Amino acid sequence: MVSQTFEAAAPEAAVVVSRVAACIEYRGTAYRGWQRQQSGVRSVQEAVEKALSRVANHPVSTVCAGRTDAGVHASSQIIHFDSDARRSMANWFHGANANLPADISLAWAQPVEQDFHARFSAKARRYRYVIYNDPVRPAHLAHEVTWNYRTLDIERMQQAGALLVGEHDFSAYRAVACQAKSPVKTIHHLRLVRFGQFIVLDVRANAFLHHMVRNIAGVLMEIGCGERPVEWAAEVLKSRDRREGGLTAPPFGLYLVDVTYPERFQLPHRYMGPHFLSALNSLDD
Amino acid sequence: MVSQTFEAAAPEAAVVVSRVAACIEYRGTAYRGWQRQQSGVRSVQEAVEKALSRVANHPVSTVCAGRTDAGVHASSQIIHFDSDARRSMANWFHGANANLPADISLAWAQPVEQDFHARFSAKARRYRYVIYNDPVRPAHLAHEVTWNYRTLDIERMQQAGALLVGEHDFSAYRAVACQAKSPVKTIHHLRLVRFGQFIVLDVRANAFLHHMVRNIAGVLMEIGCGERPVEWAAEVLKSRDRREGGLTAPPFGLYLVDVTYPERFQLPHRYMGPHFLSALNSLDD
Repeated sequence: MVSQTFEAAAPEAAVVVSRVAACIEYRGTAYRGWQRQQSGVRSVQEAVEKALSRVANHPVSTVCAGRTDAGVHASSQIIHFDSDARRSMANWFHGANANLPADISLAWAQPVEQDFHARFSAKARRYRYVIYNDPVRPAHLAHEVTWNYRTLDIERMQQAGALLVGEHDFSAYRAVACQAKSPVKTIHHLRLVRFGQFIVLDVRANAFLHHMVRNIAGVLMEIGCGERPVEWAAEVLKSRDRREGGLTAPPFGLYLVDVTYPERFQLPHRYMGPHFLSALNSLDD
Repeated sequence: MVSQTFEAAAPEAAVVVSRVAACIEYRGTAYRGWQRQQSGVRSVQEAVEKALSRVANHPVSTVCAGRTDAGVHASSQIIHFDSDARRSMANWFHGANANLPADISLAWAQPVEQDFHARFSAKARRYRYVIYNDPVRPAHLAHEVTWNYRTLDIERMQQAGALLVGEHDFSAYRAVACQAKSPVKTIHHLRLVRFGQFIVLDVRANAFLHHMVRNIAGVLMEIGCGERPVEWAAEVLKSRDRREGGLTAPPFGLYLVDVTYPERFQLPHRYMGPHFLSALNSLDD
């Protein structure tokens, strides 16, 4: 662990501030998204900071890799925070989990260099959008998957998805409220896999615009059920006009599953979630 | 469909009462079990009867195959009810689902002979108990799986489980409050499968005593983590004493997944749940 030393007024009171990276898993259903908001509004960030502050015995502020919206989940949200409290990684792990609610857990904590930044050091993010494709509404995972009762043709969705891979101006797949500087992003891969009643959209990009995965999911489902031709995905893209892209798919099925950082930070590698898809290990590479 | 005719005072007012069987899927977390209770206490039965009554336009009473406890789920709870309302099966399906909350759904409805009885006609029930075996507490399925952070040796659990198969006096695996006439039940099969972080206990019997699956799961987890020897499962069984059997495992991971009826009723066959295990199709036979 590399730490930074601040000289206080009296040299013997030198305080060692260490940076810690951690991986957070959460079910987003009960929260208005990751980001801390005005009091009275539940956010995942607030719950995480409260738990970490109790362990640190001082207020802890966190920075995350990717802010998620209300109702969106994460199996691997990466955060960093600074603390001058002398705590082992086991202390952070057990202390945080003991203070977190049932729908949030801390999967690992690790010391990192001071120049690590959960958001700015990230080279890529990966999301999975889980569709439950069955005539019967799912009662068990009502808030964890997106239900589509129309029969979806996964081959059509795969063909359409392929048209979005690479560097493009994704303005047509971007929420109006999006604050990103540039609408140009690079999709590294976009895969669709079916197993049983599930269809999983797995997409990795250097960064994502607001609602980008949900807007892509919305377009692919329209194509999958035959409502639109395969080429429509590219037509929407070329229009650069959000109004061409149809409805934003619901947040239920969306999971932030991985964030890629430079090798030198040596962060742990966790299996990709959500964990009820763990039979899909072949997708994890 | 075979119907029964009641002659009313005026012959022209003859009322045709038909019996309908249906399959209900539910997440039990928000309910105090299947069975209707005093007002103010939420039960799955009450929610289902309310929805069916709205479709029928008269009060509907249901009988279920197996009452589940508070927090226990079902992917295939079978029920029957009688109605003189002229409704197609599509009416029941769409009408009930439109009136049910998000955590309950009706998978199918089918006309049945008057002598079909959801409880007494059942020849066997099948449950699955889903354990999430990982050092990290699961945030996504906090109420849908039972978390065990100790490393479980599935081979030991399989050896112990095999000792319970067949006809036995299961008094030691029976809740004190159990009202069954006889503690003698026959376990047809008891399987344990691991995939990823999940261990699934799949058990089929002619009938189950109260808490029987959860008490078996509790014993098998104690054996799986090395706390007890494999033979302990048989020792507990032989004792016929509930006090020998240790703790009752929590309800979170328990699902009623199938009920077997005589072929002549020709009920639909649904894939076995819970549906997030659908990759486990090989288990379904």
